[in-house]
Amino acid sequence: MNKKQLIHQIKIKSSYLCVGLDTDIRKIPAHLLTTEDPIFEFNKQIIEATAEFAVAYKPNIAFYESQGAKGWESLQKTIEYIPKECFTIADAKRGDIGNTSAMYARAFFENMSFDSITVAPYMGKDSVTPFLQSNGIRNEGKWVILLAYTSNKGSEDFQKLYVSEGSMPLYEQVITTSSKWAGDDQLMYVVGATHPEEMKKIRDLVPNHFLLVPGVGAQGGSLKEVSEAALTKEVGLLVNSSRGIIYASDGKDFAKVAGQKAKEIQEEMKSYLQLFC
Amino acid sequence: MNKKQLIHQIKIKSSYLCVGLDTDIRKIPAHLLTTEDPIFEFNKQIIEATAEFAVAYKPNIAFYESQGAKGWESLQKTIEYIPKECFTIADAKRGDIGNTSAMYARAFFENMSFDSITVAPYMGKDSVTPFLQSNGIRNEGKWVILLAYTSNKGSEDFQKLYVSEGSMPLYEQVITTSSKWAGDDQLMYVVGATHPEEMKKIRDLVPNHFLLVPGVGAQGGSLKEVSEAALTKEVGLLVNSSRGIIYASDGKDFAKVAGQKAKEIQEEMKSYLQLFC
Repeated sequence: MNKKQLIHQIKIKSSYLCVGLDTDIRKIPAHLLTTEDPIFEFNKQIIEATAEFAVAYKPNIAFYESQGAKGWESLQKTIEYIPKECFTIADAKRGDIGNTSAMYARAFFENMSFDSITVAPYMGKDSVTPFLQSNGIRNEGKWVILLAYTSNKGSEDFQKLYVSEGSMPLYEQVITTSSKWAGDDQLMYVVGATHPEEMKKIRDLVPNHFLLVPGVGAQGGSLKEVSEAALTKEVGLLVNSSRGIIYASDGKDFAKVAGQKAKEIQEEMKSYLQLFC
Repeated sequence: MNKKQLIHQIKIKSSYLCVGLDTDIRKIPAHLLTTEDPIFEFNKQIIEATAEFAVAYKPNIAFYESQGAKGWESLQKTIEYIPKECFTIADAKRGDIGNTSAMYARAFFENMSFDSITVAPYMGKDSVTPFLQSNGIRNEGKWVILLAYTSNKGSEDFQKLYVSEGSMPLYEQVITTSSKWAGDDQLMYVVGATHPEEMKKIRDLVPNHFLLVPGVGAQGGSLKEVSEAALTKEVGLLVNSSRGIIYASDGKDFAKVAGQKAKEIQEEMKSYLQLFC
């Protein structure tokens, strides 16, 4: 999906909500456990209940890998089930030397047709670009979402360290350097909702890039603060919620309640879109 | 496998060779493609031919993921086939917020009984420690191999940047900080063979930690230089070779030739062990 199409979907749905599919076999409602593929069945019902209010879905790959080959099949079925007008994010946080990153690109972009993948920047340019082109040809409509300033406590360990070149924290250097590797039509950044002040500075650094924002809800970030700090004329935001939606109820009504939660967030987002875009 | 057992195996085999199982369906010999599981069949024959000369095996997870659920099954069979006295490394380069890293730990340590996993440091402490303990209980004999100074060109983009705290390059800061998170019985570092000078300094920083060294062979690093720079009384080195061994021949003799290549490296290692340990 290209940038124009993504913005179009956001405008149609008045929503920049991404639903995180962190589907944990230990947390899904008991009545699903007797189905053939409980993880897929859970995702299917969550997607049906939330697709009206969400523009993106983000399966967290760890949760599928923890189920081995069977989990990989659940993931494949899930990605095929997500409506084509929704943007899909493989939350994989990969990143390796060139020929290995190319293999991950094949796994997530060719075999599973995700639109995007989250990537860790530590290994530098040649760990990132194989996702964006193959054999010198641009992977049109495929995106890297690079970790910049993440939402967790450990983001303080290295990301905030000042680096000599330009006297800026590492996460700003990551953004500054990597923004030369690809345009805002193939590159987004992960910026945690737990850092609203820094988000304003990041928005100034990359006024035209989409930011994928985790950390609203369970991790304590505020949708209002994030929206004020980073919404642009082209929207430029995808805000993720996982646990706050998909585990809002653990009963038979889990999908209905998830739909209600998604609707609440979408309505709040609609008001911010009217205010700031 | 704990540190003492690993050193014991190295002494028995006079080898600190790790064989990288970067098994690419497009590169394995044609006569294997008609078998039920060509990737596993290839690995099985490579392991049989090299186990006498190698103390560790390192499947590169991307190559299995690129084959979807079937690749995951090949990986599972491979890890079960590796002799129990060999140290196993999931070259996965994972790293995510705490509850997600815990899921990856489950995938690689519980479901597949790898001894260790490579982890990217960018997200900090809480992305690393869930691999080393669960519910406050230490995962005895399980290791994180943290990316420090990698072998690829992109290692220059961020890892070499000087950080303010202590005026050292980021990769040294990663080592200095993370060495407080766990002992040398659960933590190793990835240091590319392409940086022999820096390897000496890293050895001074962490005199008792094992280093996992990729980049000998196809990437241009020298086994001799690496061994001179970083061998210790407790050995402290695992040197990986992937393509130089497993793709040394693409004919029916691929396993035999792989065995010969592994033996050549092991013999060279034996001489360095006598010289430096």
